[in-house]
Amino acid sequence: MSDIWFTEQQSKTVRFSIQASKILLEKQSAFQKIVVYESEEFGRFFSLDDLLMVTEKDEFVYHDMIVHVPMAVHPNVQNVLVIGAGDGGTLRELCRYASIQSIDMVEIDGEVVEVSKQFFPTLNTGFADPRVHLHIEDGVRFVKETTQKYDLIIVDSTDPFSVGEGLFTQAFYQDCFKILNDDGILVNQHESPFYEHYQQAMKRAHARLVETFPIAKVYQAHIPTYASGHWLFGFASKTYDPIRDHHPQVWEALGLKTKYYNSELHKACFALPTYVKEQLEEVK
Amino acid sequence: MSDIWFTEQQSKTVRFSIQASKILLEKQSAFQKIVVYESEEFGRFFSLDDLLMVTEKDEFVYHDMIVHVPMAVHPNVQNVLVIGAGDGGTLRELCRYASIQSIDMVEIDGEVVEVSKQFFPTLNTGFADPRVHLHIEDGVRFVKETTQKYDLIIVDSTDPFSVGEGLFTQAFYQDCFKILNDDGILVNQHESPFYEHYQQAMKRAHARLVETFPIAKVYQAHIPTYASGHWLFGFASKTYDPIRDHHPQVWEALGLKTKYYNSELHKACFALPTYVKEQLEEVK
Repeated sequence: MSDIWFTEQQSKTVRFSIQASKILLEKQSAFQKIVVYESEEFGRFFSLDDLLMVTEKDEFVYHDMIVHVPMAVHPNVQNVLVIGAGDGGTLRELCRYASIQSIDMVEIDGEVVEVSKQFFPTLNTGFADPRVHLHIEDGVRFVKETTQKYDLIIVDSTDPFSVGEGLFTQAFYQDCFKILNDDGILVNQHESPFYEHYQQAMKRAHARLVETFPIAKVYQAHIPTYASGHWLFGFASKTYDPIRDHHPQVWEALGLKTKYYNSELHKACFALPTYVKEQLEEVK
Repeated sequence: MSDIWFTEQQSKTVRFSIQASKILLEKQSAFQKIVVYESEEFGRFFSLDDLLMVTEKDEFVYHDMIVHVPMAVHPNVQNVLVIGAGDGGTLRELCRYASIQSIDMVEIDGEVVEVSKQFFPTLNTGFADPRVHLHIEDGVRFVKETTQKYDLIIVDSTDPFSVGEGLFTQAFYQDCFKILNDDGILVNQHESPFYEHYQQAMKRAHARLVETFPIAKVYQAHIPTYASGHWLFGFASKTYDPIRDHHPQVWEALGLKTKYYNSELHKACFALPTYVKEQLEEVK
């Protein structure tokens, strides 16, 4: 075996390490350090500023949960805005829905999209879809300036202690609210409850939803390669409740095969452990 | 900081490492190597043969889920058998129920119990309870020879690739079935679906339940310090279904404060991701 190891410092005194067989790319973009690895356990994976972003082995969990949960609630999503998500996984899942007419994808770092196009054939299929409009620019500015309206906004950000900082501000969420239709849904990457600095990020993500939207719920998933493996997503909306307005029969009629998400799990993933509920309560 | 690191090899090419401030004990028992650490992130924790068993920070997840799920289903648990669980956490949670009259705890390695008594004051409170009868012997032999009958059996084993091997055999589960009352429940540590060798152990744990009990379900929890963070438990019974016979109002009337488990989560934890359901289906 090689002696190449990717190591993520999950907290000050906790490390998660993956032995890689090869480094496929290592470069500094205008925003962050990007490294692409090949590995036995996870297939290909890449990191941004030494934080693990996506592995071929478990990316399906994150992308299933950030896309199919809102899509099984809103009965008629036509226009979608995706912020971040340069790896293409969110796009790939969205493109499976025939009802969607247009997807604006706004990624600040064009190099991440290039990495996906070059190294991740199972993630990058959506970029070729004619409904996808790729904007390489700052998501914060895009939502402030656009005149479009959306049925669904997906905030697929990095952590607030990284390039994603601006995507955790009140101004950003207020702009999202304005460009969302009256029955629109916003879903965000909502960090994690276990390690202290992630917990702070989680509370910050939640504060933005609670102060902006009448409906703001949190759901969870098991993502083995993210710190603690316990990851959260935020579901915010002007009208729809993720449980009350869940339409399993409509979603199942689409016949989409998924590896993590299913209709039973849809309701279940909103049932949080007591300690997580208590942390979220502190935000209100 | 110290340069003491505990490292668990979660798969052949994946490592999880915790920086410890001190090693409190390191010894070889008749069965396994036991090391007790002090750490900033997790408080005290210990490993058996270099596999992390219990940390003060996240042990509540495992012990909540292995105890309160069956206790919120069976309306009248009086006699309990616990196999393994030398750390005392399972015992601590069981001892909170006044309805329980007797707990036989069978741990093969008396040194693990001593470690709990000496180093884990928040875990070991159950050992002093007069209802608890501690048997330092092989659980496989105990279930074969006992003439007692039980309402609840908890198999809190180590992994099958360790000392726990005998607790994953068909003969052991058949003996458990025999000593369980007609409305009895058995819960087991059911391993994990993500890394290959844990997945094999999970299928083996599940096969034992499916071939022995008319009702055999699986539920999940987020345990950050176990490999992948995605951990499973098995619920097997002769009569009770964990959802249909769940009595949230009865359980809540007991007024037990829990940090992970709650009634909403009880139903939800049985909703598994599609890929896990498919793996379990392969066993049948």
